Amino acid sequence: MSQILKRYDLDKLAVATIASHTALQILRGAKKYGFRTIAIAKNEDIAQFYKQFFFIDEVWTGDFSNFRKTAERLVAENALLIPHGSYVEYVGWRQALEAPVPTLGCRELLRWEADQYKKMALLEEAGIPIPRVYRSPTEVDGPVILKLFGAKGGRGYFVAKGREELEARLKALGEEYIIQEYLFGVPAYYHYFASPVYSRIEVFGADIRYESNVDGRTFGWAEPTFVVVGNLPLVLRESLLPIIHKYGVQFAKAVERRVGCRLAGPYCLESIIKDDMSIVVFEFSGRIVAGTNIYMGYGSPYSVLYFDKPMDMGERIAHEIREAAKAGKLDQLFT
Amino acid sequence: MSQILKRYDLDKLAVATIASHTALQILRGAKKYGFRTIAIAKNEDIAQFYKQFFFIDEVWTGDFSNFRKTAERLVAENALLIPHGSYVEYVGWRQALEAPVPTLGCRELLRWEADQYKKMALLEEAGIPIPRVYRSPTEVDGPVILKLFGAKGGRGYFVAKGREELEARLKALGEEYIIQEYLFGVPAYYHYFASPVYSRIEVFGADIRYESNVDGRTFGWAEPTFVVVGNLPLVLRESLLPIIHKYGVQFAKAVERRVGCRLAGPYCLESIIKDDMSIVVFEFSGRIVAGTNIYMGYGSPYSVLYFDKPMDMGERIAHEIREAAKAGKLDQLFT
Amino acid sequence: MSQILKRYDLDKLAVATIASHTALQILRGAKKYGFRTIAIAKNEDIAQFYKQFFFIDEVWTGDFSNFRKTAERLVAENALLIPHGSYVEYVGWRQALEAPVPTLGCRELLRWEADQYKKMALLEEAGIPIPRVYRSPTEVDGPVILKLFGAKGGRGYFVAKGREELEARLKALGEEYIIQEYLFGVPAYYHYFASPVYSRIEVFGADIRYESNVDGRTFGWAEPTFVVVGNLPLVLRESLLPIIHKYGVQFAKAVERRVGCRLAGPYCLESIIKDDMSIVVFEFSGRIVAGTNIYMGYGSPYSVLYFDKPMDMGERIAHEIREAAKAGKLDQLFT
Repeated sequence: MSQILKRYDLDKLAVATIASHTALQILRGAKKYGFRTIAIAKNEDIAQFYKQFFFIDEVWTGDFSNFRKTAERLVAENALLIPHGSYVEYVGWRQALEAPVPTLGCRELLRWEADQYKKMALLEEAGIPIPRVYRSPTEVDGPVILKLFGAKGGRGYFVAKGREELEARLKALGEEYIIQEYLFGVPAYYHYFASPVYSRIEVFGADIRYESNVDGRTFGWAEPTFVVVGNLPLVLRESLLPIIHKYGVQFAKAVERRVGCRLAGPYCLESIIKDDMSIVVFEFSGRIVAGTNIYMGYGSPYSVLYFDKPMDMGERIAHEIREAAKAGKLDQLFT
Repeated sequence: MSQILKRYDLDKLAVATIASHTALQILRGAKKYGFRTIAIAKNEDIAQFYKQFFFIDEVWTGDFSNFRKTAERLVAENALLIPHGSYVEYVGWRQALEAPVPTLGCRELLRWEADQYKKMALLEEAGIPIPRVYRSPTEVDGPVILKLFGAKGGRGYFVAKGREELEARLKALGEEYIIQEYLFGVPAYYHYFASPVYSRIEVFGADIRYESNVDGRTFGWAEPTFVVVGNLPLVLRESLLPIIHKYGVQFAKAVERRVGCRLAGPYCLESIIKDDMSIVVFEFSGRIVAGTNIYMGYGSPYSVLYFDKPMDMGERIAHEIREAAKAGKLDQLFT
Repeated sequence: MSQILKRYDLDKLAVATIASHTALQILRGAKKYGFRTIAIAKNEDIAQFYKQFFFIDEVWTGDFSNFRKTAERLVAENALLIPHGSYVEYVGWRQALEAPVPTLGCRELLRWEADQYKKMALLEEAGIPIPRVYRSPTEVDGPVILKLFGAKGGRGYFVAKGREELEARLKALGEEYIIQEYLFGVPAYYHYFASPVYSRIEVFGADIRYESNVDGRTFGWAEPTFVVVGNLPLVLRESLLPIIHKYGVQFAKAVERRVGCRLAGPYCLESIIKDDMSIVVFEFSGRIVAGTNIYMGYGSPYSVLYFDKPMDMGERIAHEIREAAKAGKLDQLFT
């Protein structure tokens, strides 16, 4: 990518992303920092929705099954691609890995994220506590949660109180899955920003996912399901922040060591905080998570730890790009 | 009203509302935009509370059982009335319909809101999915929620797992009610703003109601109740925004078609998001909802989709009034 | 303290606090208002975490078992100490009571807070509804919650459905405790600010505690526990604000009457709102609570009721100190 980046006209950089997930936040931030902005929609209806916003210069309709052409068009436009969960879901991790357009962050990580077992191994490598993973249902001796492979926003996940219930439900399942120990505690998602410009890992925010139907009022009358439909703001007990920061740093180091590339831009660790205040991380995301949308516009509580004024994650990304461009460091951000 | 509005001195406009619900947000926004502000309290104690705030120029104590006199006094003061749920509750929808003072939004809608069946019919007319409504308890074949007529903040609502439980509880009930299918999923309330000035429907924010005791920790030891005592901030999965925006637009069109007047200012659709990500709307409000209070002062995450800086709903209303006054369009806002 | 304060160089004031709880908010606010800032960490690891932030001028490592020396060093630095829950926990209330350094607020209140029965008595004195307190397990005739003495963030608390369950669990307990009636409703924490400068009590914000595991998804598979790990933003039904403000005022008066000193700076009432909208206060804190962290940086919704722009609690404290210093009123803030 550094060859492509070298040919970019730094005065005419565009920021592009797929029209979903965190696109509004990303593109608004980019526009605020003076970049041209491009949204790529998966169909005309969605394109229409995004066209109404003043901060989006162009809305394209893209063919995600063959993303190469779109990638080339982005390069022709001096565009930097900000990947997010919907991008990976739409184009698939293999295309995302190879798309010939400068893409924020460590792309190689996508290979690890595609396999729940490799994900867990990377967290372990980082020295971060993870839930017990059962290789076989016969090992199960307590409550478990079953998760399907791939970022599907929780669709198809289920809990079982024990082995018997699990085995009964597994019979109907045709997809790849992982069985994790079910942890009692509260969910908490930590948003980090890895900054090559400032050489630091920032704890930027936190959220709770809002999942249907488990976060509704079911009175035990319906089977719990875990489909993410929104996010809720959260601040953490301050005495937890040093360990949360430490896990973020350890994760970045483990990625460098094992995956072989440096994290840049937003990433996320997804945890349960148990009632002994220990943190167990059951998932990560190597890029921006939708939970950052909670502070769009007015900025995250933790952003002021690093900057004079509150900033949201879209602005944070744009800020980093602008500073990296000035300092000739764009190749440390984009792969 | 356009006769009254014509006689108003546009340089001395006042913004008035009832001292409750969202009055602080409305009047603070109005003051920020340079309007005189009037709060009308239902008694002296409440008046005292509102008098402490610098952005409220006058606090009146009003006789809500006979609102005409207050309305006339408001007109004498060049005042524009911003209605909200407590206003409708205090003066009653019949008085609100006829009060001789310019009132934000489509007043005729009050007639529809007074009847839960007409409300549901209007949503259906808009092509928005609604829960099944049971005309008689004998039709009930699953979990239901029973709601009383009128905006009572959820008081008296109850759930029943099935027909038998419902019938037992109905015996003690002396008020008008509606029986709705009980939906499994998570509650989500969408705040819209219908702007005659910009000719658009804005998705402005979202919240979750905080209801006592159902959102507390009852461990199944107490019967669930649904009294709204506060609101919690929410952002939605971005892929849901196009459909949420679409429902907002469809609702505005249905109001124009069936009720015969144009929506102007804030309104709200109140929904359950199911675990297949479909949205079912079980209520609406034709005016500002208390959920907008969550972003008072610092502004809503979605406000920056339409404006340079975050804005709260009070500021949004004041902005619209100022621009409409400049453009000679106040009669498109007030009826 | 007024002797010490008289010797302070008002142009070189420092604001100091213990590196935990709400230190980031407090010190960031102080720096924004031009004060020098000092964080005192309980060990080197924590000190390292706080050293990364630009708004903290000095990070010390303190010996909390013997706080006098640190207090004297603070005085030598012209420092004003902002106490919070972790400070009281680390140094103990007896040391906090006597530390020879100007400390924000009414220190004598610490003596009352150390004893759950005295706490309840003070609330009663203020005319604020409190839960029934059982002097003996044999009196118990319904659901109860058992709380340990001292601010432990909810550790060790438990609920019991009735007397029998309670008595069984009490056998294993070796600490001081209080048995309170278990209230059905929703938790709500009110943040107040007592301002000697403006001679008023401000309702500044509200939050909900995020407690592990009770706020997680346990499906009844685990015993509920109540360890605070974070906080969630909340706004209240506006019609509740006058009574919430009134309770805040009554509490301040009761402190003056019974404890003999005037509240200054942040304090908190901690309540359940029942489904008849009545408020029952089960706890208070005489100083800043961690729930104020939810609006760090972007400011609380209620702050704009008193000031032109949103403010967080750290900024609010710094603002008060600056104005008090100008007006020669620091001795009304610090004891």
